[in-house]
Amino acid sequence: MQLAKRLTLSLACTLLSVNSFANQPVIEQAKIDTAKQLINTALESNLGYEIVESLTTEVGPRLAGSEAEKRARKWGEALGKELGFDKVSVEEFAMPFWDRGQLQISLVSPYQQELYGTALGGAAPSDKPIDAPVVYFRDVHALKNVKAGELKGKIAFVDGDILVQSQTGAGYGQANMRRRIGWQHAEYGEASALVVRSVGSDSRRFPHTGMMSKKDDQWANIPVIAVSNPDADHMRRLHELGKSLQLSLHSSSKWKGKVGSGNVVLDLIGSEKPEEIVLIGGHLDSWDLGTGAVDDGAGVAITTAAAALIAQLPERPKRTIRVVMFGAEEVGLLGAFSYALQHADTLKDHVVATESDFGARTIWRLVSNVNPDANDFIDEIAKVLSPISIVRGGSDVRGGGPDIIPLALKGVPTIRLQQNGMDYFDLHHTPDDTLDKIDSDELAQNVAAYAATIYLIADSDVELRKPAEEKASE
Amino acid sequence: MQLAKRLTLSLACTLLSVNSFANQPVIEQAKIDTAKQLINTALESNLGYEIVESLTTEVGPRLAGSEAEKRARKWGEALGKELGFDKVSVEEFAMPFWDRGQLQISLVSPYQQELYGTALGGAAPSDKPIDAPVVYFRDVHALKNVKAGELKGKIAFVDGDILVQSQTGAGYGQANMRRRIGWQHAEYGEASALVVRSVGSDSRRFPHTGMMSKKDDQWANIPVIAVSNPDADHMRRLHELGKSLQLSLHSSSKWKGKVGSGNVVLDLIGSEKPEEIVLIGGHLDSWDLGTGAVDDGAGVAITTAAAALIAQLPERPKRTIRVVMFGAEEVGLLGAFSYALQHADTLKDHVVATESDFGARTIWRLVSNVNPDANDFIDEIAKVLSPISIVRGGSDVRGGGPDIIPLALKGVPTIRLQQNGMDYFDLHHTPDDTLDKIDSDELAQNVAAYAATIYLIADSDVELRKPAEEKASE
Repeated sequence: MQLAKRLTLSLACTLLSVNSFANQPVIEQAKIDTAKQLINTALESNLGYEIVESLTTEVGPRLAGSEAEKRARKWGEALGKELGFDKVSVEEFAMPFWDRGQLQISLVSPYQQELYGTALGGAAPSDKPIDAPVVYFRDVHALKNVKAGELKGKIAFVDGDILVQSQTGAGYGQANMRRRIGWQHAEYGEASALVVRSVGSDSRRFPHTGMMSKKDDQWANIPVIAVSNPDADHMRRLHELGKSLQLSLHSSSKWKGKVGSGNVVLDLIGSEKPEEIVLIGGHLDSWDLGTGAVDDGAGVAITTAAAALIAQLPERPKRTIRVVMFGAEEVGLLGAFSYALQHADTLKDHVVATESDFGARTIWRLVSNVNPDANDFIDEIAKVLSPISIVRGGSDVRGGGPDIIPLALKGVPTIRLQQNGMDYFDLHHTPDDTLDKIDSDELAQNVAAYAATIYLIADSDVELRKPAEEKASE
Repeated sequence: MQLAKRLTLSLACTLLSVNSFANQPVIEQAKIDTAKQLINTALESNLGYEIVESLTTEVGPRLAGSEAEKRARKWGEALGKELGFDKVSVEEFAMPFWDRGQLQISLVSPYQQELYGTALGGAAPSDKPIDAPVVYFRDVHALKNVKAGELKGKIAFVDGDILVQSQTGAGYGQANMRRRIGWQHAEYGEASALVVRSVGSDSRRFPHTGMMSKKDDQWANIPVIAVSNPDADHMRRLHELGKSLQLSLHSSSKWKGKVGSGNVVLDLIGSEKPEEIVLIGGHLDSWDLGTGAVDDGAGVAITTAAAALIAQLPERPKRTIRVVMFGAEEVGLLGAFSYALQHADTLKDHVVATESDFGARTIWRLVSNVNPDANDFIDEIAKVLSPISIVRGGSDVRGGGPDIIPLALKGVPTIRLQQNGMDYFDLHHTPDDTLDKIDSDELAQNVAAYAATIYLIADSDVELRKPAEEKASE
């Protein structure tokens, strides 16, 4: 009965939306009006904030593969049902579990001082406390010149520069090198352990965690520890004074075998083209140090709230809107790869995909990488977003967010609503990633932007997918 | 030879400074010019920053009574000699030693989550891990209503409000009640342990340490732990959701018997009235969590640098300028009380005393509590400071800084150059109190203000001490 009503209404919409005539607007006014209503509703609503508050408070930190991440999936399922999604499912997958364990790290020479550090993801344990002289490297490039065996019996310390703050997060990749590949060079030098300056843009006494990169499909065989920027500053000053540094460290971080994880999938089924999927989402797992508020409780909250507001419209948009709460993002996009595999047959039906995984500051730009014929359509969406201070960015910008990478690799078009990332790397992967860092007004602007954008795409016939020959050439 | 020259010059100064005639300026122009030169020199100098950099880097954290505090005294002695002070001495005293030990604290119900906490100064250890339900108190006033034995087998959690930020630090006393006396009520209720919201104005995941108050000359018999503001927020939200909280904690903090501490005293001996003492200083000890940069490496640096700049003038001011690097301030002003005791006979010769112990932000106000006849003299000093954005505050404001309390109780006049304390309690007593939080330009303004003020007082005949009858009436 309800479905019949929806179909009737959507048929009317279809008739209205035929725009094959010259001078026909790219998006008809009624839809723009609905999008604007969604923006106004979102700006008045506290739903996004309530979702991230609930996730961070009632579930807490959610390390990939942990019991807490499992509770988060149950939370996500219950939330999807409560908010009226048409279909709620959990898609499970297996994964290896890395446990941070406990760490003690201190300077022991020239004097005793506790350092603020944490193990990096994938690091091996120390079998017993390691007490060793430090070899100082000004940056990861200097470490790359190390000779085989040169660091035997030593701890390598890789300094570096503080991550450059920017709206776009441009500084991350460069700073991240010491975290990702430093261990490979330290092991080549036969160091007992590697300590790196945290990858973060802040000057707070928090270490920043994060995953290392595998080499030849192998993880590090030594402990790898990030220390806070003030601690790295301290060691640099002592080194520059000509002091010999000695560290003591003991870490129990290690791999602990296979566990289960999963993606939570919430669908608003399209009224006219239910097989066509507009995919949005965030990741449900978080690092364990904080409570994963900005990374990425915010993304889960923004996209779920946006879809939930669209669910309150009198009828479903034509296309299916799918919110995916990805599992195990932090440890290598495991949920994302699992999704791409489990949905391999229908990826061709994914009209567009985007993830919110860059905090909850104001969205300032909309970028895209879709069928060039649809660029004017995206331009029109950007005009709708302009009153909430969002500018149209490039139409050839790859990347819809980390968990969208496996989909984009398979040709799924992407857009991205970019948050201001100026202070994102102050918080990201630290104990300080907690709810109080989220501004509810900024979060509401995010929900508004997502709701309007996703509604307009889902209730459209515009083809965002690229022609087959173009995909093939990429 | 040098002394003879100094005496000759100071005699000339004395002749110039006789201002018994009507319309004679309160401070003669030549001295104002010298003070202005000191300001300019200080603003161009990096000496203050170099001192705090050296102390925090080469000595590190300096817990009262520790081996590190002893190294700090050696550092202070060496610095005094290097900077040309006329007399450098260390005045030792004995004190009881409290050791923070190790702490593990986590939420275990409704789920497992590590909390960021630290033991409060004077707290007792847990003999074994304490795993107990939490009784929530919205603030310390609520805890005061607890009935005898009511908390048996429970952990009391005292929430509260975040310390109100202000230039003056006005919020500290009120917030501090939960830290100081909470344990007395928790013990009356027979709680197994007390956990309090940190006394801090920040929303960072750092616990704030600090000393508790004794009761009937006794310290707490239970573990007392401060958790960070975000952790306290988290527990409050769970409590408001109706969840039963359970905590697990294990702390090895304890008293460990008598140790030695000391004050480092650096004198620039007065050229004309060497027995009259203008006392400035900071405290050499720090809490062990950070490296004691703003609390109180800055104060040591500011006052030492100011005196060192005065030492470079062609002649010594008339009165003795004494820099005291107080020991064991954090644990109960032990160095300050020892100083007052060891110098009891000469306190009457202390013309004025002031301590810098409120960080290193820009000084914005000069307040005083001296002989009312000298108020116009202080007003004139304030005029000299006006170009560096310092305003004259009250002339009846008690308090020259924490370590000045024992002196003020004995009638020593006080002034205070007040730093902007707006973010002081974000850092104070946390792991985040590190060198990078100090702005070298702001620190230089502090040195400038101290140098000019102290020079003008030391090279003056104005009597700041109150008449005996007024002292007696206080």
